[in-house]
Amino acid sequence: MTASPGADKRGAKISSFAILFRTHKARLMAKNMLAVVKPQAKPGVEIRDVAIPQIGLTDVLVKVKVASICGTDVHIYNWDRWAQGRIHPPLIPGHEFCGEVVACGSEVTTVKEGDFVSAEMHVACGKCLQCRTGEAHICQFVKIIGVDADGAFAEYVRIPESNIWKLDPAIPIEYASILDPLGNAVHTVLAGEIAAKTVAITGCGPIGLFSIAVARAVGAAQVIAMEVNEYRRRIAKEMKADLVLDPSKEEVRKIVAERTSGAGVDVVLEMAGHPNAIRTAFDIVRRGGRVSLLGLTSKPISLNFSEDIIFKGITVQGINGRRMYQTWYQMTALLKAGKLELHPVITDRMTMADFSKGMERLTSGQASKILLYPDGTK
Amino acid sequence: MTASPGADKRGAKISSFAILFRTHKARLMAKNMLAVVKPQAKPGVEIRDVAIPQIGLTDVLVKVKVASICGTDVHIYNWDRWAQGRIHPPLIPGHEFCGEVVACGSEVTTVKEGDFVSAEMHVACGKCLQCRTGEAHICQFVKIIGVDADGAFAEYVRIPESNIWKLDPAIPIEYASILDPLGNAVHTVLAGEIAAKTVAITGCGPIGLFSIAVARAVGAAQVIAMEVNEYRRRIAKEMKADLVLDPSKEEVRKIVAERTSGAGVDVVLEMAGHPNAIRTAFDIVRRGGRVSLLGLTSKPISLNFSEDIIFKGITVQGINGRRMYQTWYQMTALLKAGKLELHPVITDRMTMADFSKGMERLTSGQASKILLYPDGTK
Amino acid sequence: MTASPGADKRGAKISSFAILFRTHKARLMAKNMLAVVKPQAKPGVEIRDVAIPQIGLTDVLVKVKVASICGTDVHIYNWDRWAQGRIHPPLIPGHEFCGEVVACGSEVTTVKEGDFVSAEMHVACGKCLQCRTGEAHICQFVKIIGVDADGAFAEYVRIPESNIWKLDPAIPIEYASILDPLGNAVHTVLAGEIAAKTVAITGCGPIGLFSIAVARAVGAAQVIAMEVNEYRRRIAKEMKADLVLDPSKEEVRKIVAERTSGAGVDVVLEMAGHPNAIRTAFDIVRRGGRVSLLGLTSKPISLNFSEDIIFKGITVQGINGRRMYQTWYQMTALLKAGKLELHPVITDRMTMADFSKGMERLTSGQASKILLYPDGTK
Amino acid sequence: MTASPGADKRGAKISSFAILFRTHKARLMAKNMLAVVKPQAKPGVEIRDVAIPQIGLTDVLVKVKVASICGTDVHIYNWDRWAQGRIHPPLIPGHEFCGEVVACGSEVTTVKEGDFVSAEMHVACGKCLQCRTGEAHICQFVKIIGVDADGAFAEYVRIPESNIWKLDPAIPIEYASILDPLGNAVHTVLAGEIAAKTVAITGCGPIGLFSIAVARAVGAAQVIAMEVNEYRRRIAKEMKADLVLDPSKEEVRKIVAERTSGAGVDVVLEMAGHPNAIRTAFDIVRRGGRVSLLGLTSKPISLNFSEDIIFKGITVQGINGRRMYQTWYQMTALLKAGKLELHPVITDRMTMADFSKGMERLTSGQASKILLYPDGTK
Repeated sequence: MTASPGADKRGAKISSFAILFRTHKARLMAKNMLAVVKPQAKPGVEIRDVAIPQIGLTDVLVKVKVASICGTDVHIYNWDRWAQGRIHPPLIPGHEFCGEVVACGSEVTTVKEGDFVSAEMHVACGKCLQCRTGEAHICQFVKIIGVDADGAFAEYVRIPESNIWKLDPAIPIEYASILDPLGNAVHTVLAGEIAAKTVAITGCGPIGLFSIAVARAVGAAQVIAMEVNEYRRRIAKEMKADLVLDPSKEEVRKIVAERTSGAGVDVVLEMAGHPNAIRTAFDIVRRGGRVSLLGLTSKPISLNFSEDIIFKGITVQGINGRRMYQTWYQMTALLKAGKLELHPVITDRMTMADFSKGMERLTSGQASKILLYPDGTK
Repeated sequence: MTASPGADKRGAKISSFAILFRTHKARLMAKNMLAVVKPQAKPGVEIRDVAIPQIGLTDVLVKVKVASICGTDVHIYNWDRWAQGRIHPPLIPGHEFCGEVVACGSEVTTVKEGDFVSAEMHVACGKCLQCRTGEAHICQFVKIIGVDADGAFAEYVRIPESNIWKLDPAIPIEYASILDPLGNAVHTVLAGEIAAKTVAITGCGPIGLFSIAVARAVGAAQVIAMEVNEYRRRIAKEMKADLVLDPSKEEVRKIVAERTSGAGVDVVLEMAGHPNAIRTAFDIVRRGGRVSLLGLTSKPISLNFSEDIIFKGITVQGINGRRMYQTWYQMTALLKAGKLELHPVITDRMTMADFSKGMERLTSGQASKILLYPDGTK
Repeated sequence: MTASPGADKRGAKISSFAILFRTHKARLMAKNMLAVVKPQAKPGVEIRDVAIPQIGLTDVLVKVKVASICGTDVHIYNWDRWAQGRIHPPLIPGHEFCGEVVACGSEVTTVKEGDFVSAEMHVACGKCLQCRTGEAHICQFVKIIGVDADGAFAEYVRIPESNIWKLDPAIPIEYASILDPLGNAVHTVLAGEIAAKTVAITGCGPIGLFSIAVARAVGAAQVIAMEVNEYRRRIAKEMKADLVLDPSKEEVRKIVAERTSGAGVDVVLEMAGHPNAIRTAFDIVRRGGRVSLLGLTSKPISLNFSEDIIFKGITVQGINGRRMYQTWYQMTALLKAGKLELHPVITDRMTMADFSKGMERLTSGQASKILLYPDGTK
Repeated sequence: MTASPGADKRGAKISSFAILFRTHKARLMAKNMLAVVKPQAKPGVEIRDVAIPQIGLTDVLVKVKVASICGTDVHIYNWDRWAQGRIHPPLIPGHEFCGEVVACGSEVTTVKEGDFVSAEMHVACGKCLQCRTGEAHICQFVKIIGVDADGAFAEYVRIPESNIWKLDPAIPIEYASILDPLGNAVHTVLAGEIAAKTVAITGCGPIGLFSIAVARAVGAAQVIAMEVNEYRRRIAKEMKADLVLDPSKEEVRKIVAERTSGAGVDVVLEMAGHPNAIRTAFDIVRRGGRVSLLGLTSKPISLNFSEDIIFKGITVQGINGRRMYQTWYQMTALLKAGKLELHPVITDRMTMADFSKGMERLTSGQASKILLYPDGTK
């Protein structure tokens, strides 16, 4: 199976000038592979035997070693409103992974067979205002592999060379599979001054949890994590947040005031997307502080602009994806230097064929990041 | 042993010894003056004969030449909810003015009698986190002369030396009286990149109108002004906005898209504080753009954070007051260089005793900036 | 009529009236103290019994607990060219210290007797362009306590309230005495992006050594220290630099290229002031990188601007003092959070009366930061 | 004739997968054209009849309408040391031009025949650290069309699609031919804060002269131009510099001090590359100011780092090329808005075949920007 061709037309060019070249790569691509497939417009997925993707002149074929599940995959699985509006089945989802290069298009020059890689799955058009001015992460015509084209929940995935990220073998394979959400955390934390700052993180899903580690690694003086789910709060403590609060029970505003001489925190990283968390973010940020919004909201949020933003003179940022490719350089430099301990966030490891079990685990609220192994666990 | 006294004279004041002064200044301060007074907690003002303010060792007494009326003064006059919560009568309002120094406290060193001055009326505490890190415009304990202490709608006003802004005689007296709102405009326009950008200004009160001139002066490539009031739109045209739209009748979103190759504007300066204008601001800003909020809102505003901020990767800023004193340096440099033509905004000139008439004019929607002359018009 | 007095209490000082005070403070200031004195224009110092400084209305008298010796003090001691041009004896040197407040001028409001404090010894004029725009660290008329006025190598030192830095009791007293040079390091490290960067530090005097700790604390991915003195290189290793090089023997340029995929380092912090070190700085910085210059040079340095700066598109910064007071907030936040281990830099502790012995130790090249105790060592 | 193949291998890919496609384009490319050719390693050029360049799948063929001469072309013509080290004849020089697209490779999507275009002639590799982090203007492997590959002093020039800049027909053709040096000016002026600043420009070659116009357009409060050549000073006045000085005769330092209350200028744009000009730049910049270096130096320059950079706390920037493609967006927005009047800089227009005459004119010091018309002047 291949990506819906309709999707391909909407903007970014995912493969170019697909002339088949007659090599062992071509033979490889003639074989089949196992994949998690959303076959039609309804809840659920199927494990299917599909064709290995064909690659174009500037594409790379990667054998997936580990992939990991994102909240987006749950939306696709559940076929919610967002999924219904965006996804065009059949589709292989999956946009967090690492693997080994097994074939390269003939024009590929920066990567070769055997390389250990991950990839930026936001494929920017390269031609719009944003792309041409260093803001490709907010490309007007971005396409996401695993959302708009076939992704990484399969034995093989096709990636354009431009989006391949070569990895140092020193980076643990488990970490290599979660660079996409780790990159969200790095992008958010480093979207403004952070060294020596007091930072609050509202919402401790995987990206919030990663942000604790990143903020600590880059010198945040104090990291206060907030989360209503007890299981996640426990992980937040393992990630060494200086303070972990339950906003459903504790007087967050008062406690923050006490810890900040009454001023409020310098930086809030909003990673919950929940109205209460957003309300808290604006309550606890200090005058002149920063609120970086990453958590997606499904409903409108109401703010008192005068009190919440204008009189306080704060800066509010929308954060999307990872900066191409500053975030990737930053992230791998921190990982190589051993500055990030992320294991507490990885709560489950399973065979890719058990994908639906992963969905159950996530729905239970008793799992955080789940790794999938195409070849069976380890 | 002590520090070499010669060194002390070169500049920095290391210690200050207080000496009471008995001069003609003291005599001056024994006299009375005419002032606009809010005598008690109810609508309206009175013109009264009151004592000229006494000055302390580090204060300056200024004879007001021209003062101008701000929307805040209308709130105080009308005694609305905001005024009831903030103002403690009796009070002399007025925070936009220029004048001549007539007396200085004995420790004042940077200004002298006869100097032509205006003043930053936000008196920052100088001791909070914000004040000590170059963010005095969002001081936690700011007091505003004309709001929290007696202001400039009088023949004389007392100003601490730290807040006096000495003016080059080349700056026209009428412009010197409106530096406070002009400073709001300069602060907002220059709060991010502006050169060669397409800028939309939502709301054409005096600050919005000034912002047209400032944005043009600092190289905005295109200035699109939006305003529902026809009188103000006419002034916006006189200020040379490239395009002036009536959002109550024109399809702003569509027109902006046409003017920006579909991308949206780079910068929105929100100066209306009205829900419709704010809605428009977020609709027309491009991905990666800036929305600078200055217009105060009285009610909560509802936004779809995901669509309006996060996916677009925009930056939203709350803008308050004027940066102390970068904004003042910038503003006077632009004025001295003759880069700002502001006369269309000054629609009325009247004797200060006619203050209530000024209130009527503003309420009519057929006036913009009104100048008051304590000594009678011109 | 006057401003509501209630408002006056909330913070900002709008006017100040001077009242002379007659208390035990005045009595204290009548006593004598021991001090290190440069009595006249020639090499050396004397330990003398001098009057305790008198304080003004806005001054604070601090009993010194620990002071530390800076390279500047060596210049003053040796009476070199720089000292001859700048110092006006008699003078008590010393500008690194901490202590306890024992008396406050009557207008002092933010500090009280018994407070544990250090101080920013650069007293900015508060009135020049730089001071009024958040750049007081490069004030045109700055005076330095311990250089232009009596300093901290004494039992008591007088500090203007504005320059006092209150310390959390959690901060170790030894660290509290070296905030001035630590602040230089924090200012330099944080003068640009640093998280996830590869950083080279040329020159491992105390500030260079502190910079290793600071750079690591704020997320530098790799810290490469360079120093010709073997004693200092040993300390650099104790400070946990990732790599410590001897530029007099090792091929720095080649080694750096190997560690950075040939690109060069992202950031160089130049702390030696030696022509060879500066030459190295420009050789090893990558295209688009940053060179922050702190080490003072006594002779002109020659550069090939085209190759060294222009084609590489680098940014070169002159770093002076500490930002007032951002650097102080950053520094104390990092210290309070326990992110800086500085003990290896403190190599000697001695009685203040042994000042000349400290000079000998520094001259030997076998000491780094020396602490002086007015009351005898511990 | 074609570009030296050796050059092609050194880094950036100028054409990709050059399969000839059988269309009228192929026929066009079979024809010959007139070109200015540096045939061998010695001074001078020849006007020759050479093959029209073949284009690859992602290339564009442009019919040159106007090209203009840069100082670099003089170096190539004179065959000086720099040229001997960099240029591999045979070569068609020329990197400033505009023209009309006459053929597109089959994978070209953003430009079509008939489009009015110019181009960024620095072809970045797209794969190095700098290219992948928005700093392509300092690509480690950049190749310059007209220097490392055949350029625009010909009837036709081949440009990779990525580097084509489509132009609004509203932009005058003469301006369209000088976007490369105008972009240098825009890049330099906008490399830091400029609005309301006092700016000195040292050196009034074409880029210095353009910088006067750009600085004025983006709100510089005062532009002081310095130039020893009387002819150029006259143009600087026509460009409306506020003050034009002859540093060989006037006391620049004193005059600048008088115009800046003794503080010095906020920004120096160094465009001369001469030791005296660079000395002046550091003398007149204020504490905390910016010195942006664009003028290339052929010899080492000596500075007193302590006095010139460190104590003053200034920032020195190396400026190279144009930011891809922010500078292009900024430049065309300013041009479209009619904010730049550049005609005084264009002093000569001639037939391209008269190239050597242009060299003479430039050498005389009595010409600034010279336009060349392949088809004869107008």
